[in-house]
Order: sequence, then C-alpha cells, then structure tokens
Amino acid sequence: MNKEFNLRLVLRMMGSLALVESVILLAVCLIPIIYGENDTSYFFISSIISFTFASGALFLGRNPSAFIGKREGSVIVTFTWIIFSLIGLLPFWLSGSIPTFTNAFFETISGFTTTGASILNNIEELSHGMLFWRSMTHWIGGLGIIVISLAILPVFSTSGTQLFAAETSGPTKDKIHPKINETAKRLFLIYVILTATETILLRFGGMGWFDAICHSFATIATGGFSTKQASIAYWDSAYIQYIIIIFMILSGVNFSLYYFGFKNKFVKVKENEELRYYLILLFIFAIIVALSLIDFSKVQSFTTLERAWRDSLFTVSSLMTTTGFCTADYMNWKPLTWVILLIVMLTGASAGSTSGGIKMIRVVISGKACYYEFKRLIHPNAVIPVRYNGHLVREDVLTRVLAFTLLYLVVAGLGILVLAMSGMGFLESTGGMITCLGGVGPGLGLVGPAGNFADIPEFSKWFLSLMMLTGRLELFTVLLLFTPAFWKR
Amino acid sequence: MNKEFNLRLVLRMMGSLALVESVILLAVCLIPIIYGENDTSYFFISSIISFTFASGALFLGRNPSAFIGKREGSVIVTFTWIIFSLIGLLPFWLSGSIPTFTNAFFETISGFTTTGASILNNIEELSHGMLFWRSMTHWIGGLGIIVISLAILPVFSTSGTQLFAAETSGPTKDKIHPKINETAKRLFLIYVILTATETILLRFGGMGWFDAICHSFATIATGGFSTKQASIAYWDSAYIQYIIIIFMILSGVNFSLYYFGFKNKFVKVKENEELRYYLILLFIFAIIVALSLIDFSKVQSFTTLERAWRDSLFTVSSLMTTTGFCTADYMNWKPLTWVILLIVMLTGASAGSTSGGIKMIRVVISGKACYYEFKRLIHPNAVIPVRYNGHLVREDVLTRVLAFTLLYLVVAGLGILVLAMSGMGFLESTGGMITCLGGVGPGLGLVGPAGNFADIPEFSKWFLSLMMLTGRLELFTVLLLFTPAFWKR
Repeated sequence: MNKEFNLRLVLRMMGSLALVESVILLAVCLIPIIYGENDTSYFFISSIISFTFASGALFLGRNPSAFIGKREGSVIVTFTWIIFSLIGLLPFWLSGSIPTFTNAFFETISGFTTTGASILNNIEELSHGMLFWRSMTHWIGGLGIIVISLAILPVFSTSGTQLFAAETSGPTKDKIHPKINETAKRLFLIYVILTATETILLRFGGMGWFDAICHSFATIATGGFSTKQASIAYWDSAYIQYIIIIFMILSGVNFSLYYFGFKNKFVKVKENEELRYYLILLFIFAIIVALSLIDFSKVQSFTTLERAWRDSLFTVSSLMTTTGFCTADYMNWKPLTWVILLIVMLTGASAGSTSGGIKMIRVVISGKACYYEFKRLIHPNAVIPVRYNGHLVREDVLTRVLAFTLLYLVVAGLGILVLAMSGMGFLESTGGMITCLGGVGPGLGLVGPAGNFADIPEFSKWFLSLMMLTGRLELFTVLLLFTPAFWKR
Repeated sequence: MNKEFNLRLVLRMMGSLALVESVILLAVCLIPIIYGENDTSYFFISSIISFTFASGALFLGRNPSAFIGKREGSVIVTFTWIIFSLIGLLPFWLSGSIPTFTNAFFETISGFTTTGASILNNIEELSHGMLFWRSMTHWIGGLGIIVISLAILPVFSTSGTQLFAAETSGPTKDKIHPKINETAKRLFLIYVILTATETILLRFGGMGWFDAICHSFATIATGGFSTKQASIAYWDSAYIQYIIIIFMILSGVNFSLYYFGFKNKFVKVKENEELRYYLILLFIFAIIVALSLIDFSKVQSFTTLERAWRDSLFTVSSLMTTTGFCTADYMNWKPLTWVILLIVMLTGASAGSTSGGIKMIRVVISGKACYYEFKRLIHPNAVIPVRYNGHLVREDVLTRVLAFTLLYLVVAGLGILVLAMSGMGFLESTGGMITCLGGVGPGLGLVGPAGNFADIPEFSKWFLSLMMLTGRLELFTVLLLFTPAFWKR
C-alpha cells in the first residue's frame, strides 16, 4: 500500500504523453503552411521543446517498476493535464498571440479541460494555425477524458485497486470491453465518426472547411472555443445552429451508449435513466427559457417564435452539455434565465461523455435519495432501497454520490468566495466559478457570453485554471493531491 | 398505519392553540392602555375572533380519539404556524397599520417563524401596541420551536412513531427529560431567564424598557424585528451592540446545553462538536469580513478598527444565528462579504436553538462525510465510520443528513428560480430566498438591510411566506403535505 512513490513510472508516462503532443504539434505545422502564414516556426519550436522534455522524462524514467498505486494514478492524471497545458501554451505565448504567460496558460488549460472560457478580446486576430491548435486542445482533451473514464478506469476499478474511485466514469459502470486497448480504439472510432459527421454537415450548410472542423472539434469535446468572436451567432443560419444543437446534445450522451447502439443492444440505451432525465430536463428548461423570451403582449410571428425557441434550445443545450457556444447574449435576458442556466451548468450532462458538471447520473441518484427520504418518513418501517437502471444502489454508493454532489456544491460555494475575495463582483464570481468548475465557458456579468476572462485579477485566472482541472477530474483526483494524509507513508 | 385522518384531534389542537393566542392578544391590550394609545380595540377584537374560532374548533373537535399519526402530526405543526399567523395578522390589518392582507400575513408569519423579513417602510409609524405584538410574534414562535424540537419530538421519536423524523431537533438528540411537560417547563424557564437578562442589560445601557423588551424578544427568538427602521444602528452604542451580539450568539446555542450547564454536566457542553464548530466558524467569518472592511492603505485608528470589527461580528452573528438585526448596510460592503453572509445564512446556528438554516450539526456531519470519502479513497480497504460527539453515525442517519443538506440547497436553488420567474432580480431572488428559507430577515439588493420586501410581487410574498414556514419546520414537515403518497390510505 505505502510503497515508495514510483516517480520513474510517472516520469515515463509524462514523457510518453509529451512525445504524443510533440508529434501533434509537428502535424499542426501543416496548417500555417497550407494557409501561407508565417508562424509555422512557433509550432515547430514548441514541438522541439515538447520533444526535448519528453526525451528527458523518458530518460529519467527508464526501467520503471510496474507498480502503480493511488498516488501515482492521481499524479499522472492531474499532471497529464498540466503538462499538456504547459506545452500547449507555447505556440500562443512564443508567437505573441497571447502575450502573457498567465493568459496563455488559462486559455490552454481551458482548452484541454474542454471548458472554453477565453481571455481573448478579438479571436479573429489569431492566425489559422493558432485557431486550429486552440480548437485542437478541446478535441485532445475530450478524447482523453472519454478514454480515461470509459476504457482505463473501469478496468482498474474492477481489478480492485480503485485507482480513481470517484473519478470520471460516474458511480456505476457498464464496461464496453475488458481490454483497455480495445475499448480505447472503439471509443476513438465513435469520437472520430461524430466529429467527421458534424464537419461534413456544417460544411454542407455553408461553413468553410476550416471553421467546420474547428467547430466540430469544439462541439464533440463540449469545449466551446469558436473561431469567431461572436461565437455561433456569427452564422445567422438556422441550419448550422440546429446542427450544432444536435451534436452538442449527442456529445452529452454517455459514449458507451453509442457503442451499445452499434452492437444492437438498444435495450441498454432505451432503459438508460440518465439519458432519459438528461433529455427531459434539457427540453423542459429550454421551453421555460423560450417562454420567458417571448413578449406575449404582442402578436408573434413564426420568425420571432422560432428565433426564441432556437436561442433557448441552443443556450440550454450549450450550457447543460457544458459546451459554451453562444447564439445570443443571455445577459440581456431576464434574470430568471440566468438561474436556469446556472442550474444546468451545475448539473452538466451524462457521465462518460465529454461534458462536465455534477453529471446527470449523480443528479438523478441524489434526487432519488431525497425523494426516498420522504417515502421513508411516510412508511417508516418499510425498507425502500434506491434503484437506478433497475438495479439497487448500495447504501455506501448512495453516501458516495450524495457526498460528491454536496462536495461539488460546497467547492462551488467556496470558490465563489475565493473569487469574490480576489475582488471580482457578485455576478462574475458566481458565474465564473460555476462555469469553470463545470467546464462550460461563459459565465455571468462581465465574464458572460459577450465578455471574457481577460480583465479578471491575475490570481483569479490561476485559481479558475485550477478549478477547471478540479472539475474536469471530478474533484477527488485533484483535491486528493492537497490532502496531507494522501502523501503519508 | 393508514387509519382515517383524525380531524377531530387536529381541530381540538388548533382550538386549544387559538385559545392561547386569544389570551395573549387580550394581554397585549394592556400595552396601548399603558401608552394611552387608541388601538386597544383592535387587539380586543382580534382576541374575540381568535376566541370564537377556538370555541368553534374545540366544539367540532370534541371527544377526539387519541390516535395521532404522521399525517395528523404534520398537519398540526404546519397549521399551528398558519393559524397563529392568520389570527396574529388581525391587529395589523384591522387597524390599518398594514393595510393589505398579503403584507399583513407576510409580516406576521415572518414574525412567528422568527424570520424578521419585513414589508414595513417606516417602522416608527407603528403604535407601541403594534410594535410590541410584532416583537411578541417572534418570542412566541421561538418558544414554540424550542418546545417542539426539544420537548415534544424526542419523546415521540423514541416511542417509535417518528412523528417528525426529519424535524426540528436535528439528527441526533440528547433528551433532557422523558416527560414532555417537565422538559417544556425547564426550557420555558431558560427562555425567560435569557430574555429577562438581556432586557435588563439593554436597559442598563440606556435603551428604554419598551425597546429593551421588544429587542430581547427578537434576539432570543433569533427573529430580527426591531422597533426602529434603522434596526440596531439606531443605537450608536458599543455597549448595546455588544450585548445584542452576545445574546444573539447565545440564542444560537442548543438550548439543551443550557440545561446541562445548569445541571453541572459541563462535559456535555464542552464536548459538543456542534457548539465548537459554530463558534469557530462564526469568528473565522467575522474576522474575514472585518479584514475586508479595513482600508489597509491608510493608517487606522482604534475607533475605525473597533467599528469594523463590531460591524463584522454583529452582522455575521446576526445572519448566522438567523436573527437579522443590522448595524450597517452590508450592500455597501465588498461582494466578498455578501458571499460569506449567504454562506452563514445557509448554515445557520445550532439545532435545538431558535435559529434556522441547515443547522451546524448537519453541516458538520455532511462535512465529515465528504472528508471521509477522501479517507476512504486513500485507504479503500479500511472501514472508516463517521463519528459525531464521539459516537458513530449510522449509515442511514448519514444518508438522511446528506439528503437533508442537499435537499435544502436544492429547495433554495429552485426557490431562487421561482422568485426570478416572478420577476425579481438576481440579487433579490438569491438573497430573498436564502434569507426567508433560513429565517434570517434581510437579503441582498433591494431586499437587503436598507430595503424591505414591500415592493416584491404579490406572488413572491406568498411564496416566501411558504418558504419561511418550510424552512422553520425543516423542509420535510411542510413538503410532506404536498406529497400525494402522504395522503394515500
């Protein structure tokens, strides 16, 4: 249990991952070459730096023992995101596209955690290469979280080590395949098919290939970086906006359900309570928001009604799946909608998807636990267990789910406190914390859809970067690293 | 279990309680007589109406069967507050002191639930009689909740009927005395001693007898109605403000601890975790708020430092004990303080006190549950039970506490949504909901310490009245009444 920390293995893993990033960065050099832009060198230098780091880490981490414990696991997962971000920020920083280190780090970790919160004031200023790399960080981060949560974790937790027991796959699991490699391959395939399909459909709607690819990257990863300052509002096309709505919603579904769908196990899909509640809540909230946007004192044309419905559905889908694309500035809407949007930012979509937040499975189980307390009060002598997908939820799993949901809300509350302490306003602290912890993107007030995170205090940027990571890795993985007992031998 | 609803017993109880209120209202007639005011008749008429209602209810409820089940219990407790408010609003409404029925009901239920949220624009306009009755509603409501939570509930729940299992005494109980009457008498004595002591000390500080009594009523009940529009800021006296701080803090302590103190069982007091966390958190938050009030760029005099500390300690004590008195308009403070104040409004003080909110005992147990999840992740094979006051917390109690805490936050969240839907602003919805559910008084924005609830929509007033009651009776008692299964036979 308390063996010496396996630093060599950690270094080796970090080295391998940096090697992967080095190769990706080299590939991205093609983009400025294609577009005849002069910043190829920055991607190339970044790739070289990444390669140098990878070589060093692989050398120091040569011949590691195979032992991997909880500490190694937590460190590997957390530092994967940090190192990817530290390397990934290089093109932005070196080229001066994002001149300050803090901003470059914020933007990059916002990308890799598929948050989509930005510090950029004028996105269109960036070169094609930079924009592509920015969207690419989403796509890599999204793929990473899917593979970790659906391929790696289930294998580890059934083998009894409970590597990241509270981590990304949610409290109950349906395994796709017992072998990590096989599962990862299948998930990668689903991920690529979804991305490619969206790209083609967007191109078909008149979006250029470049924008179509970048937006598909950001949609499937539920990231939210756009190539335009105005986000999706730039394309005033119902077709494009509905396509993005559909793919945002699809990206909020547990990816293992696609796998079961392909295998003709539709029963698993049909009986999935998380999916059902996710879609029902999404549409209920979208309808409420739409109604609040319509001025019933006037006669309505189909155009304004459709516009209200589309903006509502887009915004609710975008924030509930924690994507963060925008077609409208909801800060101009009624405060009622802000409350709804904060609620969906907190819930998030499904576990096993690229979305963030508490995740619908925990919301459903927590909701049932509260509801069953009522039942228990009414029938004090009856044994009324909580069921999910037809299975009993064990009492300790129930406690764990409730503790997670509560901890999430507590972390959100304390985070708002920290941001307010750093000098941010009430709306900005509330919206900024919930959006970053949930991996959404836009917040409220000055950090709302029409604003950005450029002008918040330096400290808040680093704090929110940490919160993006904490939320992405479902609290425990990151918070454990700050627990002294975790490091005691 | 599912016997016919014992309406007669419910009517009999309602009748008895209305009879009590009738007698109290008759006694309050003395106040206008003493002050030579001309509104004696309104109290007298109210007393007659109350008496008539009591007689009718007692007649209809003659010879009841002794059976009292969960449904009867919930109805009795909930309707006690509603009927007390419906009768208690009569003097305000009949006299025209509060001309509209909605406002009169809001003010009165705010009194009986010891909330202290007001719709009055100019409190000093009210006669002595009305002011006295207004403060008296707090005192009656506070005494009621203490007796219910510490005398009635423990007896019922040990007899196995679990009358209000989730109700007011918090999740674990130390019984004072097995007989309801004996316990109630002792609690009444403690309640009177605290009130009398504060009254004398306030008088000693230069406050008139009338104001001293009214403010002691409001302090011990953690209510918050003042006889002055400026609340405690009216008395610019450090002595008076510190006395009120001390008694607010004392009123947030579980009253059974006073009993154990009197019985020389100081060990029970010293080892009480709830008390410890309550005081520690209160002082930590007060210190943070105080630091945020000091402008460190200037040289500070003792006077400004003391003022900052006193205002902070006063405000944090007032809101954490859910009293709601004010010495300063915290809407002029930094948003950081609002976040802290919202947090302490949510936590509240101790169970078995007159304060509202989630209650510190549940906060402590929920916090431990979250913390122990970390421990379980670090030592997956160890059995690590949650302890409170040195005792094990059973897994089902833990689930219940977590579900309560979560349900409280969910109700708060949904309530904010409802208020926002009714047209209130973001700050007003957030502050108004949390302050009313917690039984505090002042909220944020227009319903903050310098404002009041007069101008919120009619619907919001009724909704917030229901929320004050829901919070006062700890969610389940009231929410159960809205559960169809509760009424199924």
